[in-house]
Amino acid sequence: MLVVGELINSSRKAVAEAINNRDKEYIQELACKQVEAGADIIDVNCGTSFAEEVQVMNWLVDIVQEVVDVPLCIDSPSAAALAAGLERHQGQAMINSISAEKERWDAVIPLVRQFKPKVIALCMDDGGMPASVDDRLRVSDQLINGLAAAGIPAVDIYLDPLIKPLGVNHEFGMEALESIAALRQKYPEIHNICGLSNISFGLPERRLLNRAFMVMCLLKGMDAFILDPLDRPLMSLLKASVALAGQDEYCLQYITAARSGQIKA
Amino acid sequence: MLVVGELINSSRKAVAEAINNRDKEYIQELACKQVEAGADIIDVNCGTSFAEEVQVMNWLVDIVQEVVDVPLCIDSPSAAALAAGLERHQGQAMINSISAEKERWDAVIPLVRQFKPKVIALCMDDGGMPASVDDRLRVSDQLINGLAAAGIPAVDIYLDPLIKPLGVNHEFGMEALESIAALRQKYPEIHNICGLSNISFGLPERRLLNRAFMVMCLLKGMDAFILDPLDRPLMSLLKASVALAGQDEYCLQYITAARSGQIKA
Repeated sequence: MLVVGELINSSRKAVAEAINNRDKEYIQELACKQVEAGADIIDVNCGTSFAEEVQVMNWLVDIVQEVVDVPLCIDSPSAAALAAGLERHQGQAMINSISAEKERWDAVIPLVRQFKPKVIALCMDDGGMPASVDDRLRVSDQLINGLAAAGIPAVDIYLDPLIKPLGVNHEFGMEALESIAALRQKYPEIHNICGLSNISFGLPERRLLNRAFMVMCLLKGMDAFILDPLDRPLMSLLKASVALAGQDEYCLQYITAARSGQIKA
Repeated sequence: MLVVGELINSSRKAVAEAINNRDKEYIQELACKQVEAGADIIDVNCGTSFAEEVQVMNWLVDIVQEVVDVPLCIDSPSAAALAAGLERHQGQAMINSISAEKERWDAVIPLVRQFKPKVIALCMDDGGMPASVDDRLRVSDQLINGLAAAGIPAVDIYLDPLIKPLGVNHEFGMEALESIAALRQKYPEIHNICGLSNISFGLPERRLLNRAFMVMCLLKGMDAFILDPLDRPLMSLLKASVALAGQDEYCLQYITAARSGQIKA
């Protein structure tokens, strides 16, 4: 199970302010807290409201890597910002994301070839958001073949099936879950990842929906999540779910986490 | 989705005391609270520490039916106590439980034939606890055929796959979940039910494991639970899960519950 901590994102008001003020301490503390809470990778995203995304990305990568030992996930729709982050990053980074949209693919694949990062690959092409399980399988084939040709091994590919809001259509939850199961079955050695919060967009008590959906995704075979590791009930449910899914021998990780007070019912 | 409220059970100390003192008010309040919290059926169990289980069962059925309109689940390993509860109960009751163990089957099936209750049927025979998915399917066949011959329609049968503690073997979670999926597929019109707490026996932070396991069971096709409806996070997760599983058109039940303050992240 891989947890990508999502909190260093300039779409969050406090983070945007901290970036604006170059408040190094705030960002570094947010990185450390997420690692302490169990994040394996720290996402850095400054795509919102910054004209100088490239410079900000350089700064973020520098100051976060000063204080944490885990890799960063360089997160941007802009190839220039991805390039800046990858150049600055020490060790193998993750990028969020590539897709099969022609323009995005052509812009990002040279970076993939050069830096060999772990790659989050969105199951989307120029046809737009996937409309079915089959859509996702078709696009995945294309992504996996293309990434393999660029020298990325299967274990470094993280397919994102793209989660659509349940509030828009009450069948979007099951469509996503069936997609995860189909991807897991067709590509057993390739990871699946998603951001949890899309599912609850527009609905009340979003954190609750995100938590239940995380349990369901895990059961269907998802093995990586972009989430808020400071959400204690969410992280507790994640550890419980790993144990319930038979992925925690003798429940040792669960028991150890509970004894050290990390788990809270 | 059917929720059986489990709290009126003499294995709980406060309930045992209330029964001992014939504290009608305490029991009635516990029944009402569970219905308010969303229980569709109220379980009554007085099998622990009472020599006079039959008299106590009569009393419980009388006082609980005085204050709630929902049916009761008459819960006892003793056929005499089941008979007492069924005789006293107004309208169609549920019983917990029959099994394919010869002695239990022979004792309970005449009551089933006479009172035509909803029946919780444990997937267990004289070979003891089921050891595999196939064991459960084999015993289920026997139970369903026997109950049909006794005049019980499919919609009144609730198969309990029997959940074994994850702490004993970390594969027992997946064994139970695969059993639920197999039962759901083989008998689409027959209900599945379980008590949630067995899964977490012997492990820390039991409520957390019970909650995550409930979400997983629901996703695999379980449509009835014996649980504590006063566990607010559990009931909230249940409503969220029903929506995520596509069983709540336009998410209307979820949204309504959230707006009325019943759901809490």
